[in-house]
Amino acid sequence: MKTLGVIGGMGPVATVAFLERLQALTPATRDEDHIRVLADIHPRIPNRHTEPEAAGEEIGWIAVRLAAMGTEVLAMPCNTAHAHADRIRAAGVPFIDMIAETVKVVADAGGRRVGVLATPGGEALYVAALTAAGMTPVVLEGQDRAAFMSAIFGVKGGEAERSRAEIIRLARALETAGADHLIGGCTEVPLLLKAEDVSAPLTDSAEVLAAACVAACA
Amino acid sequence: MKTLGVIGGMGPVATVAFLERLQALTPATRDEDHIRVLADIHPRIPNRHTEPEAAGEEIGWIAVRLAAMGTEVLAMPCNTAHAHADRIRAAGVPFIDMIAETVKVVADAGGRRVGVLATPGGEALYVAALTAAGMTPVVLEGQDRAAFMSAIFGVKGGEAERSRAEIIRLARALETAGADHLIGGCTEVPLLLKAEDVSAPLTDSAEVLAAACVAACA
Repeated sequence: MKTLGVIGGMGPVATVAFLERLQALTPATRDEDHIRVLADIHPRIPNRHTEPEAAGEEIGWIAVRLAAMGTEVLAMPCNTAHAHADRIRAAGVPFIDMIAETVKVVADAGGRRVGVLATPGGEALYVAALTAAGMTPVVLEGQDRAAFMSAIFGVKGGEAERSRAEIIRLARALETAGADHLIGGCTEVPLLLKAEDVSAPLTDSAEVLAAACVAACA
Repeated sequence: MKTLGVIGGMGPVATVAFLERLQALTPATRDEDHIRVLADIHPRIPNRHTEPEAAGEEIGWIAVRLAAMGTEVLAMPCNTAHAHADRIRAAGVPFIDMIAETVKVVADAGGRRVGVLATPGGEALYVAALTAAGMTPVVLEGQDRAAFMSAIFGVKGGEAERSRAEIIRLARALETAGADHLIGGCTEVPLLLKAEDVSAPLTDSAEVLAAACVAACA
């Protein structure tokens, strides 16, 4: 078994939901079967949207510190922050890339026109990765881009009900725009959207990352 | 705001449930309002019941490492392991004592004959603290002591339903034995027992610890 380092806090509630998924996916019948996790749940990492340079620097430091603490695998349950994946890899510990893992799962599931529910930063990463893998990304347009961010900040602030209705509407808008598969490409999405809310298959990036961490560490 | 260090993994599921309670009790309308947490969720700390010396040594090391990482307050969501509180205090960072905090809450609530749902190790700590505070502890007797441990190991192993029925039976046995107040003195108890399952007021040690951490750090 390997010790997993979790670069968390983006956001904090999504990180704890990720830790829950990790435990639920671990084949365990007693405490000792679970993965050891060192988590830095840091809710004041500089804003990934407005201060990307400062955010990248802080994320890089967290990775270095977790590596120094003896973590053998690193993961970060925040898609947007994967823009700084190189800073994490610089810590010299294997890093499980949530964007790459998620796109692999979607390709294996036969996705072709893939709708992306993500922040602008996360979306850019998914658009590049999906295109490189020969799939066609389908993204939110116009006002719906701001509506997505508003829903995500809503659930961070505890307004789950309003946010939930809005995310379902946006997921269905991607289906209407021709998506045959959907990616929950923001770790707050599974706090709001369930597979049964949509017709197309939904691949949740947090769930993919949790499963990849179990495969790498358990 | 202060950074909280969490000595976790005893058990891992209880630790993540504790982190959830911590977030739920934090007055937050955005990510930045949450407490930064460095958590070592270590499910292979030596057994607190059968290898207390080795467990204490490992717990002491975790505290030292979390202190070196810059945590300003330490907490450990495992009652049994509080037998090693001195090892944690030796790290030189303020440690929130879950047993002491819980007994304080029960005293303030007017508890007099206080039923304790805990492992033998945790029970001994509560009996001493309740007695010192002038209250009368009420403990499980005979076969019920083994039944409690079996229920706790059951929920750790994913058998929540059977364990839940058993914990409710044991809590009611403490009421029958004269308890006017109950302590959920094991962090697995809130995974199983709710306030509405019993007649006497129930004070959950994990909830008390989460509230004390919010008061100390947020």
